Amino acid sequence: MAEIIDGKKIATEIKDELKIEIEGLKRSGITPGLATILVGENPASQVYVRNKTSACQNIGIYSEQHTLSSKIKEGELLELINELNKKPNIDGILVQLPLPSGIEEKKVLSAISPDKDVDGFHYHNVGRFFCEKSYSEMKREELFLPCTPFGIMEMLLRSQVKIEGSEAVVLGRSNIVGKPIAMLLLSANATVTICHSKTSNLKGVTSRADILVAAIGIPCFVKKDMVKQGAVVIDVGINRMNEGIVGDVDFAPVNEVCRAITPVPGGVGPMTITMLLVNTTTSAKRRLKMKNEKLSTIFNF
Amino acid sequence: MAEIIDGKKIATEIKDELKIEIEGLKRSGITPGLATILVGENPASQVYVRNKTSACQNIGIYSEQHTLSSKIKEGELLELINELNKKPNIDGILVQLPLPSGIEEKKVLSAISPDKDVDGFHYHNVGRFFCEKSYSEMKREELFLPCTPFGIMEMLLRSQVKIEGSEAVVLGRSNIVGKPIAMLLLSANATVTICHSKTSNLKGVTSRADILVAAIGIPCFVKKDMVKQGAVVIDVGINRMNEGIVGDVDFAPVNEVCRAITPVPGGVGPMTITMLLVNTTTSAKRRLKMKNEKLSTIFNF
Repeated sequence: MAEIIDGKKIATEIKDELKIEIEGLKRSGITPGLATILVGENPASQVYVRNKTSACQNIGIYSEQHTLSSKIKEGELLELINELNKKPNIDGILVQLPLPSGIEEKKVLSAISPDKDVDGFHYHNVGRFFCEKSYSEMKREELFLPCTPFGIMEMLLRSQVKIEGSEAVVLGRSNIVGKPIAMLLLSANATVTICHSKTSNLKGVTSRADILVAAIGIPCFVKKDMVKQGAVVIDVGINRMNEGIVGDVDFAPVNEVCRAITPVPGGVGPMTITMLLVNTTTSAKRRLKMKNEKLSTIFNF
Repeated sequence: MAEIIDGKKIATEIKDELKIEIEGLKRSGITPGLATILVGENPASQVYVRNKTSACQNIGIYSEQHTLSSKIKEGELLELINELNKKPNIDGILVQLPLPSGIEEKKVLSAISPDKDVDGFHYHNVGRFFCEKSYSEMKREELFLPCTPFGIMEMLLRSQVKIEGSEAVVLGRSNIVGKPIAMLLLSANATVTICHSKTSNLKGVTSRADILVAAIGIPCFVKKDMVKQGAVVIDVGINRMNEGIVGDVDFAPVNEVCRAITPVPGGVGPMTITMLLVNTTTSAKRRLKMKNEKLSTIFNF
């Protein structure tokens, strides 16, 4: 039986560290603030936004939720984003995806100020982390990394999984998970392969993986015979089935061959929300830094 | 013996197509314009800039060259870029890399307007193409793709190399070639692996490749036993040796096992410059479009 990589536990550790940072910020007169925007009545989105809001409350981050009708015009949404961009007590803006048809996702995500883009989806922030050479440098520079891949990296590192020199295979190539986690694993010196629906001999490719990340949204897609003995398996899938939430990995049989695995639920999920809190706090720390710089300029005058 | 993928010939084909577009633009009153900036006296950089300028002249693109002393202050360089950003007859701005020490590359590249960033190095443009799903969509949207990877893609496509479903292996992970060509091959449905100096069992990885891209800058690094029988080999290396310019691939022996190969010189090199001309012309087409939209607004009034 494989080691279970406990996302909930690691998330709690990170949140405990964050709490101390947030208390420090508050003593300096800064409360980190997150604005969430939910358009329409998608039930899964409602759950996600509610979870994010309560995660903020639990840790001492101010949050405000903007709920808009699915009939809203794109222009009104852009106007709200623009207002939030200017609001000094808001450090992060999150627009819950997917957006209703008729609203252009690209345009909306580009409207969020890169300085408040705590989801890490703005082209500028994507380009920024793509161009950074090493993961440690990304962390030092406190870039806004997209939350799910960022969470996976922290999970691996805090579980002492050796990334450098390993073969990592990423199954799936979304902008939210597949492509960015491939880039992050590369930045930590893994040899990275991205495979997808058009891959020939998929089983042959996934079987090479020392680290296998499954992010395709197909329940129990990764079978035992696709996984190398001793691999570390990261299951990003959140598939809602009659029997409950199920990952992209056929957990019980894969568990027999791999060395370590993330469960669903309780694996990547809690990490994703936590990294949103990290990014929001990072943004608030930048606000404090700018405030201090302004003060020092005034006193130098 | 392998088929030689003749970069010079393909570049000429593309330039012939471009000439027609440029003549059309000129009839509409628009001459595409490129500004190059060379800082310092790096001899290789001088050659590159001279080649780019003369390529512009040959095809009917206006070009102006700004040569600055290596002792220039970063602020002066940024000021020049800012002026060029505003100049209506300039569609593309190219800062020749590397920059002398003391000038921050990131800052300089970010100062170029994303609308004139014909090298495709601005974070915004990098993020934009990273997030685009398919290569055909990137082309349809006329994104500024970085010139060398863009050139490689056009070379492969115009040589009828099947990318979809193939295993592509990219050796090297620079921002200019390795990482972006990996993303472009992925967007054309290859299964893509990126390997590098920290890769264990490098030979095993490169031997999987149906398409092997070598972009590491080490002369003759890729030996015959690293290449699969029947592979397509793209050599991006330009290594200046006593005996002349040499690629990253040990050409003669590799030529015996692969199905097709790009020579050095005369392979990727001519394609890189050509794609710069393509991007500059694309930018000029946007300028024409904006001019026409403005005119139609006036007449609608």
